[in-house]
Amino acid sequence: MNTSFEFDLTAQDGRARTGIFHTPHGDLHTPLFAPVGTQATVKSVTPAQLEELGTNLILANTYHLYLRPGDELIARIGGLHQFMHWDMPILTDSGGFQVFSLADNRKIDHDGVTFKSHIDGSTHRITPEKSIAIQENLGADIIMAFDECAPPYDLFYNERALERTHTWAERCLKAKTRSDQALFGIIQGGVYPELRQRSAEFITSLGFPGYAIGGLSVGETKGETYTILELVDALLPQDKPRYLMGVGSPADLVNGVLRGVDIFDCVLPTRLARHHVAITRMGRLNLANAGHSSDAQPIDERCSCYTCLHFSRAYLRHLILAKEMLAATLLTIHNLNTLLELMRDIRQAIAAGDMNKFSSEFMAKWEHSE
Amino acid sequence: MNTSFEFDLTAQDGRARTGIFHTPHGDLHTPLFAPVGTQATVKSVTPAQLEELGTNLILANTYHLYLRPGDELIARIGGLHQFMHWDMPILTDSGGFQVFSLADNRKIDHDGVTFKSHIDGSTHRITPEKSIAIQENLGADIIMAFDECAPPYDLFYNERALERTHTWAERCLKAKTRSDQALFGIIQGGVYPELRQRSAEFITSLGFPGYAIGGLSVGETKGETYTILELVDALLPQDKPRYLMGVGSPADLVNGVLRGVDIFDCVLPTRLARHHVAITRMGRLNLANAGHSSDAQPIDERCSCYTCLHFSRAYLRHLILAKEMLAATLLTIHNLNTLLELMRDIRQAIAAGDMNKFSSEFMAKWEHSE
Repeated sequence: MNTSFEFDLTAQDGRARTGIFHTPHGDLHTPLFAPVGTQATVKSVTPAQLEELGTNLILANTYHLYLRPGDELIARIGGLHQFMHWDMPILTDSGGFQVFSLADNRKIDHDGVTFKSHIDGSTHRITPEKSIAIQENLGADIIMAFDECAPPYDLFYNERALERTHTWAERCLKAKTRSDQALFGIIQGGVYPELRQRSAEFITSLGFPGYAIGGLSVGETKGETYTILELVDALLPQDKPRYLMGVGSPADLVNGVLRGVDIFDCVLPTRLARHHVAITRMGRLNLANAGHSSDAQPIDERCSCYTCLHFSRAYLRHLILAKEMLAATLLTIHNLNTLLELMRDIRQAIAAGDMNKFSSEFMAKWEHSE
Repeated sequence: MNTSFEFDLTAQDGRARTGIFHTPHGDLHTPLFAPVGTQATVKSVTPAQLEELGTNLILANTYHLYLRPGDELIARIGGLHQFMHWDMPILTDSGGFQVFSLADNRKIDHDGVTFKSHIDGSTHRITPEKSIAIQENLGADIIMAFDECAPPYDLFYNERALERTHTWAERCLKAKTRSDQALFGIIQGGVYPELRQRSAEFITSLGFPGYAIGGLSVGETKGETYTILELVDALLPQDKPRYLMGVGSPADLVNGVLRGVDIFDCVLPTRLARHHVAITRMGRLNLANAGHSSDAQPIDERCSCYTCLHFSRAYLRHLILAKEMLAATLLTIHNLNTLLELMRDIRQAIAAGDMNKFSSEFMAKWEHSE
């Protein structure tokens, strides 16, 4: 079992890079996209189907699994890998983002957060130490520091939240006991370059095996996202992986890679699938539309996924109208394949030194894809 | 393409038999169980998963597909095999059973049935000729005569319904135009031996490539089912397959095989799966029960299905409580595997001349399985 969590940069093309991140459950070839399995399942597909798609890393949510079925129960069953039958790497978030999203049902203090469960209203408290304890019970390969994601345009709030995020990062490092998990630090600071710089400098000074950029894609403009990404990219060590949290449209992936990002995750492909929407190179396609009712074509005839190889738009629309579960499964397979294939193409382009050409062609081809 | 629809008996053991039924989409090894794909999908699983389970024949419902998406649309897409991507044999029912189940929303006359759609209340009419036309558009390998399934204990109703069923069987035969579909005749007559005998004699006199026994498992006692099955078995030609419609608990399958049945279908395994119930040799198991909350065992440790090889009862219960679609998928895989494996065991026992031993052992082992 490789517990070194080394990151080997294998190619660079401008700011874009390819690399291999070594984890106890195998190597991750970056840049990569991680599907989200909030409740220890990527919704509507089996692990076998995920593996067939070429998925390597998946993300699971600490907040949800802590509440149900409970991290201690998962530890008794043998940990999250065993519980959900995923033998490749897993990443868990810290629970912070979900807890802070509870709005009226949470109270933050310098030591942690007290909140009410969305399931049964019961009261719980998560501190940095508790977040690490939960994540150690879950046993993911990559775990995250407990941070506070502030509203992007509230300078005063961001300043206070950043202090907490930094103190909590130190406490997370101290609380950590398992050597087979890589704890990533998180850079916060909203849209404010000074705060982002201060955060990047402080968090990197603590020496993590990887760094996440939090608090982006939460309401700011694309221009602001890119400014912050470029600023942070220049401050992060080259020899550690960078993870842009919660980002996942095709254009966002390409733009992130162009600015030095290695790891992405997002619910977008799986959530759109359950809302009947396919992500394609020609844009988003709502398969519930009547226009598809007798269309014998697949979603995308250039796509080689199981869904596109075997099923027509007419069939998918029929499944949607008939409220058949297979609709979500087939659309999830297609959407995940689209993003995973895009990342394979990106890795190839970087290795070939063609990332500029690739991204211009991408922007032309996929221009309607947002 | 083999359009002969010959049935080769390969072994007999008492009344139980194994055989091979040749269809344009491949050979069916009987006795067999056919999963139900009412709306052109076996709920919650992909065709690839069905194939991996060793499924050969699946059933689809004419009533549902006629209403939505429409048999003409399916014909334009290339037929039901192409539409739902199932390259092995398909059987469609006649639509009769579903239409007659509409109770207040249908009116029967000597020529056919007028009914209101359960989807939008629109008025439709199915006659024997129309049922065959729809089934020819769908293009299944085995199609069924349009019949009337009367309440089992109403002698007067059964007498009238039997007249219609017989006249309609003749009209179906006349209406049929495709040579690549086998039209099966249906024996009716409720719990009344005289009617069943009359029906078997009349329907077999018309010369179908296979025969279905309808109107059983609709409220009568097991003893009555067996009496009728034994009576009909003795009257049906040995060299044609017999299909017991809508039957599918493990004990019902064994008891049917012991009385000469070759083909079964039932929604039971897939419907129970969506209601959190696993079919096992130790009886039915409701995975939603709190007793399974921290149980690291699979549903059945002797089962070799994908679900039992990789997932604990605790995980399945978690998926159920979290309302995750994967619960239905994994339970469907297990339940279908249980019935398909039972049928493989039965075929082996018959071939070995061990069916009596097999069924006694089955009754002892599976005694709590109903």
